[in-house]
Amino acid sequence: MGNQSITAVKGFLAGAMHCGIKQSGKPDLAMLVSRVPATAAAVFTTNKVVGAPIVVGREHIRGGNVSACIINSGCANVCTGKRGLVDAREMCERTAVILTDRGIAMPTRNVLPSSTGVIGHFLPMEKIRSGIANLALHIGDAAEHGEAFAHGILTTDLKTKTAFTQFNIGRRAVTIAGCCKGSGMIAPNMATMLAYVATDAAISPTALRAAVRDTAESTFNCVTVDQHTSTSDTFAVLANGMAENPRIEPGTQSWRSFSRALEVLCDSLARQIAADGEGATKLVTVRVLGAATDADARRAAMAIANSPLVKTAIHGGDPNWGRFVSAAGYSGAKMNPDKAQCQVGKITVFRNGQPTDVSLANIQSAMQQFEVDITLNLGAGGKGTCRVYTCDLSREYIAINADYHT
Amino acid sequence: MGNQSITAVKGFLAGAMHCGIKQSGKPDLAMLVSRVPATAAAVFTTNKVVGAPIVVGREHIRGGNVSACIINSGCANVCTGKRGLVDAREMCERTAVILTDRGIAMPTRNVLPSSTGVIGHFLPMEKIRSGIANLALHIGDAAEHGEAFAHGILTTDLKTKTAFTQFNIGRRAVTIAGCCKGSGMIAPNMATMLAYVATDAAISPTALRAAVRDTAESTFNCVTVDQHTSTSDTFAVLANGMAENPRIEPGTQSWRSFSRALEVLCDSLARQIAADGEGATKLVTVRVLGAATDADARRAAMAIANSPLVKTAIHGGDPNWGRFVSAAGYSGAKMNPDKAQCQVGKITVFRNGQPTDVSLANIQSAMQQFEVDITLNLGAGGKGTCRVYTCDLSREYIAINADYHT
Repeated sequence: MGNQSITAVKGFLAGAMHCGIKQSGKPDLAMLVSRVPATAAAVFTTNKVVGAPIVVGREHIRGGNVSACIINSGCANVCTGKRGLVDAREMCERTAVILTDRGIAMPTRNVLPSSTGVIGHFLPMEKIRSGIANLALHIGDAAEHGEAFAHGILTTDLKTKTAFTQFNIGRRAVTIAGCCKGSGMIAPNMATMLAYVATDAAISPTALRAAVRDTAESTFNCVTVDQHTSTSDTFAVLANGMAENPRIEPGTQSWRSFSRALEVLCDSLARQIAADGEGATKLVTVRVLGAATDADARRAAMAIANSPLVKTAIHGGDPNWGRFVSAAGYSGAKMNPDKAQCQVGKITVFRNGQPTDVSLANIQSAMQQFEVDITLNLGAGGKGTCRVYTCDLSREYIAINADYHT
Repeated sequence: MGNQSITAVKGFLAGAMHCGIKQSGKPDLAMLVSRVPATAAAVFTTNKVVGAPIVVGREHIRGGNVSACIINSGCANVCTGKRGLVDAREMCERTAVILTDRGIAMPTRNVLPSSTGVIGHFLPMEKIRSGIANLALHIGDAAEHGEAFAHGILTTDLKTKTAFTQFNIGRRAVTIAGCCKGSGMIAPNMATMLAYVATDAAISPTALRAAVRDTAESTFNCVTVDQHTSTSDTFAVLANGMAENPRIEPGTQSWRSFSRALEVLCDSLARQIAADGEGATKLVTVRVLGAATDADARRAAMAIANSPLVKTAIHGGDPNWGRFVSAAGYSGAKMNPDKAQCQVGKITVFRNGQPTDVSLANIQSAMQQFEVDITLNLGAGGKGTCRVYTCDLSREYIAINADYHT
């Protein structure tokens, strides 16, 4: 297998380094660059408290073109007022100036900034300034550069999260590759994380925005670790057109192909986030059907996925399915308990308002797998469905978050 | 100090015993009886999945009179279909028959049933039948009987939760005393628990219903341990009139006195639930003000109180106030971060969109107390307020709920 990292996409360079923000010596600064300005679309957090990089990122994405993403971890630059905004703008400006010097010309407004880490502290700008200058000299398009980037955006994640796909549009091969960070402060709207996807597809801005919006809804907005929507969520797709395919326009067959490929790729990233949630020992998929509406299905699925009682039962491998059914019951979704049905894995445990006669030992064995699937039909008589990824809740989550030092 | 338990109230008898539902040998059957039919009002869970005792309890409370409450723990009788309903009705019937035999005459519809414990299992009716017969012979009005009742309704609670008050209405002394269980599956609407309050006040049914509704809203509906609204919540007030005060009518001065006393009493019970939440090491009070509406204030306060990241920061005594502010940000409440203000204890940590210059060490010391107070002004320019009680999230919560056997 050749390079399947983000730098496998034609015209993209990347890199990461430790510039001194994190005490641990781990990478804390990362950069993704397209040799030519890319058509870009992004979805940001819905939190009303947002980091300065989100404010600046929203301004910059409006232009529709992005040439570089600059990301630091270790400090989120949130709740930092005007000084935070000045700092976020300076990160973009420094990145644009130094890359332009290196022959990849771009205006400041073509740089998308992200910061992740603790809230309420100012960025150490001295370190970031020299870090950007240094990092710009070390980006490249080899596999190691893409892998360094995937490492560089992590915080408490244990693993890098990457995905890669290739397909044809017309006679041209198109590549999409991406990576993301997740782990903690992971909840929908959108799924509280940073995700960067690069493609060499040629695609119109409208077509890209539609694909990004649809994909966010069905993938990253359907993953939750701890229901705490971050102030820094960013999912950005950069399409630089270097595949030289016929430009993808909205509503066409090639748009459907592209959207489908993007969705499959982001679905993989979303599952990786859930599986590597803070303290996670299991990957949980919650499917709700028979809901009055899709929104109702989502309410019920999220209530199940976010209930600490559900997550601890799964952690313990305990066949306590009453917690799943009762979580749906308080979700606000329409539900008819007498017609509801609940499955753990492929085992039906609850039907017609009563437990089935399946043995607890059988349910327990389904609960003790690494992947636990919960399916609940709300019995509301509709066709609404939703699928949500989450993980279990372990002592390790407490250790990570109670012992974390600000 | 004399008897301050629920049997301190004139005309009330109580008791509890182990009838064999729980493996542990702990009390699992409890009974509260009024010598004369009491005017009663109750609030039940808002979960759409409810236990059979809730269905029966709603029917019985409609009559307005309750003479006895019969409660078992170890099995919730939820998701048990028609058989569950038959069992819940039989619990009431057995209780009525045997107490009538003992000279406290009552119809079946005057008995309020509750069950708490695991969901999806049928009640062991043999044990409950003989338990009721046995327990009815051992109820009494001594302090030990009231204390046994307060013990008998517990599940994973570590402590009994009781409150007592006396005051005058006209020239007559009125007593109110209550107890409750909480611990896990504790969330608002209503606060997922069983609470029984007895009073000898004479009060009209309408006046009592209004007082119970108002009190539930400001006390039990403002406590959350794990946001998981139970299927079995019951808060019942029995007023048997034996104080012989002039009957309390709605909207009068005596109604306000009674309501205020009931609220203070239930506020104490609600705080006790939070302080004894599963795995709790701290009592947390979240106050939100400056909200557009009270409903918005409640949304923000609940988002803060339910965030695992907030709860683990408090557990660790970590001065990570960004988690409080960001939880309000995703709550859906209107918020203006630039005008918002956050205090930990009496220390202002965030103001005008920026951190104050208070030292982390000072915040840390406020976070390391047993009682942690978080106050957030949303800066939305309104007068909406809400106060919520919760606890921290510890490894012990995981141990209790992951290692719990169904």
